[in-house]
Amino acid sequence: MPKTRQQNQNSLYLSPVITIVIISILSPLSLAAQPSKFRRAPRFVGKLPHLTEPPQRQQRQQQQQYRYETRYFEQRLDHFSFADLPTFSQRYLINTDHWVGPNRLGPIFLYCGNEGDIEWFAVNSGFVWDIAPRFGAMLVFPEHRYYGESMPYGSREVAYQNATTLSYLTAEQALADFAVFITNLKQNLSAEASPVVLFGGSYGGMLAAWMRLKYPHIAIGALASSAPILQFEDIVPPETFYNIVSSDFKRESASCFNTIKESWGELVSVGQKENGLLELTKTFHLCRILERIFEGVSVYYNYTGNVDCFQLDDDPHGLDGWNWQACTEMVMPMSSSRDKSMFPAYDYNYSSFKEECWNDFNVIPRPRWITTEFGGHDIKSVLKLFGSNIIFSNGLLDPWSGGSVLQNLSETIVALVTEEGAHHLDLRPSTNEDPDWLKKQRETEIKLIEGWIDNYYRGKKATFNM
Amino acid sequence: MPKTRQQNQNSLYLSPVITIVIISILSPLSLAAQPSKFRRAPRFVGKLPHLTEPPQRQQRQQQQQYRYETRYFEQRLDHFSFADLPTFSQRYLINTDHWVGPNRLGPIFLYCGNEGDIEWFAVNSGFVWDIAPRFGAMLVFPEHRYYGESMPYGSREVAYQNATTLSYLTAEQALADFAVFITNLKQNLSAEASPVVLFGGSYGGMLAAWMRLKYPHIAIGALASSAPILQFEDIVPPETFYNIVSSDFKRESASCFNTIKESWGELVSVGQKENGLLELTKTFHLCRILERIFEGVSVYYNYTGNVDCFQLDDDPHGLDGWNWQACTEMVMPMSSSRDKSMFPAYDYNYSSFKEECWNDFNVIPRPRWITTEFGGHDIKSVLKLFGSNIIFSNGLLDPWSGGSVLQNLSETIVALVTEEGAHHLDLRPSTNEDPDWLKKQRETEIKLIEGWIDNYYRGKKATFNM
Repeated sequence: MPKTRQQNQNSLYLSPVITIVIISILSPLSLAAQPSKFRRAPRFVGKLPHLTEPPQRQQRQQQQQYRYETRYFEQRLDHFSFADLPTFSQRYLINTDHWVGPNRLGPIFLYCGNEGDIEWFAVNSGFVWDIAPRFGAMLVFPEHRYYGESMPYGSREVAYQNATTLSYLTAEQALADFAVFITNLKQNLSAEASPVVLFGGSYGGMLAAWMRLKYPHIAIGALASSAPILQFEDIVPPETFYNIVSSDFKRESASCFNTIKESWGELVSVGQKENGLLELTKTFHLCRILERIFEGVSVYYNYTGNVDCFQLDDDPHGLDGWNWQACTEMVMPMSSSRDKSMFPAYDYNYSSFKEECWNDFNVIPRPRWITTEFGGHDIKSVLKLFGSNIIFSNGLLDPWSGGSVLQNLSETIVALVTEEGAHHLDLRPSTNEDPDWLKKQRETEIKLIEGWIDNYYRGKKATFNM
Repeated sequence: MPKTRQQNQNSLYLSPVITIVIISILSPLSLAAQPSKFRRAPRFVGKLPHLTEPPQRQQRQQQQQYRYETRYFEQRLDHFSFADLPTFSQRYLINTDHWVGPNRLGPIFLYCGNEGDIEWFAVNSGFVWDIAPRFGAMLVFPEHRYYGESMPYGSREVAYQNATTLSYLTAEQALADFAVFITNLKQNLSAEASPVVLFGGSYGGMLAAWMRLKYPHIAIGALASSAPILQFEDIVPPETFYNIVSSDFKRESASCFNTIKESWGELVSVGQKENGLLELTKTFHLCRILERIFEGVSVYYNYTGNVDCFQLDDDPHGLDGWNWQACTEMVMPMSSSRDKSMFPAYDYNYSSFKEECWNDFNVIPRPRWITTEFGGHDIKSVLKLFGSNIIFSNGLLDPWSGGSVLQNLSETIVALVTEEGAHHLDLRPSTNEDPDWLKKQRETEIKLIEGWIDNYYRGKKATFNM
């Protein structure tokens, strides 16, 4: 194993805390300077390439390991109306090296692309590449609309122009994209009878779980890693996210927790002075990252030492896709508690949130829509009654775990919870350095997926013999 | 029992054949004059007020029996995008006379409004009124968008103006209307924990079944009467519908079947002459209805003898809602076989169908969308695996039964099939004249619904005691 790879891998076990720091610190700092930012659902940074692009060497290495063809599929902009809108080109990556083909009902593993460039997700989801040969599976990675190259209206510039052009950036449209895409792909390959298994991490994990619930005729099961499908309305307490961030810090270093908790007052007063923010930026060693954490972060995001500055804002206009989604459907109430959080106390306030979204996007959020469309309340009895074949995997270090499903709901809706796990660590490639609990978790996932597929084949055989 | 009521009731047992005649004859006649009409999914006439309005006396009588409040609910035009569109006012009828209230978790029976005025469906769905007291249930009848008073853009005239204004007339939008409506209603009544049971006949039955599949967190079960959810693509043979119509005729009178089958040639040649259609209209005793069937039809549609002419076209421009739906999502291939059908032979041709829809509505159909969104292929194994609590009731005289689910798929997805039944006869009010098989069918339905509700209460109690 080359050193760089090892370094990178080690950093994954640091990353929960480190990546948390990045978002967390960004948010409260913004809270001082720009109160608005704090109110929105934090980005799923664990998955996002926003912070800084992976160094080129790493990228090249990964691309060698993960070979795929890039293709495009024409999609409707609004699946649920017949409005005369332009279609757009959805990018997808495909690998059929290990697929045993349609006659043997070779499985299709579909990674539900989330809020970013699909190539990044593909090369960072080593788990599906690792297990494809064992299952004789094809891999497909359809990109989420409005991200990467899958831009409606031909370009990101036009797609992100205003609320009208952005209005079709919704989870339901993305799920329908996947459904139409896979139905077509299977037909073209005469693989209608091949079982589809869904994978996804973070928002992609939410999509995988929801797709299994909404399109069970299309996919036989879903591995939903770190998928906070319950982070809506009052299903979990709004303090959950920042409480977990804070307790992660405490776990690593009680003094660090205290230092941070006590420093906000001073930070805010410096920040409000003339040139104060500039001064803070310098103090915190480039782009507002606390100096003492910089080294640790570097291992993960900049192990070549080539990057001098962490770009925390990916879009200077704030008009990035996740912010739009957080201001429309993905309304995840977030508070910061007085005692358990190391961040400035903040009580979630929907009115301010709404006002902010109006100012930023000219859009009014629909805070109750997600649970109306996908459920969420009373999830234990509801999912037990109608759902099946979903794995909710979560690491308790991950602040998003608080909004996910952490208990088995039935024999086939299974929660895999690891004490040490971080944001969808299970979807990363396996390495020799993996701790035992992670190896065991992945083995369980493989067994469950095998069970789904075996069941499916048995059902097919029974129908065939009838 | 007053005579009028009895007459009306008797006519229900004639109606399968009679109503079939009306649509069937309309279609092939149109085939001669206007080949296009035959290609579209026939209307669900059993439920539609198109043919003629019920006589005023009957209406008054029914309204006395079925008391409801009329209310309105503001809905988004496109639930699945954030496009800045005007909201519209959805009408709903509500009766709480027998509801035992939220504290006792009183059930809510929701009739899924279909393609017409909701008042008509409400007063013609006596079954739900009959059983409400027994269940302590509230009744709600939300109207389907673009029908009755529930018109986007403020008026039917604007809503039906063109493909752009009509573009939000889709089944998925209608289901989302129901989901948002019932979620709000329950919240307003603090009845979040009350179980919802869905009812629907014909297209409304399809909506009820699909709603149970897509929104199982919102409704605990569905009675889907005469719901041809399999009448898409190649799931059932395209000849099915007209074969059943024809065999119904044969069953009543072999000579009638033969007479009709042999007369098309002459009808077509007369129809093609100058004034030929006018001549035919006269010959067939007002508005193109075969004279020998006129009397039978009269009993059902015109028992007061006040109506001289049957209006077969409800909209002279052909721009009615069902035609739009048939040209967009509800693409149900229909052929007429050479031997088993009494109508002129016709092979379904998608290209012509598509062309016709383009000419009529400026819209391109999506013939594979319904099965992508709701499933349909391999329904036996798929529904068995993921669905539950649906009754598919069908009468084999009903030509739509051929496209419905006629076999039990699991313990909780049940097919109730009656030899003598017609188009959702089970949803009609019970009378003393009901035949035993119909009484028995309704009893089974009531028992199944009781089972769903009891199960739901048991689950609630278990959660409560935990």
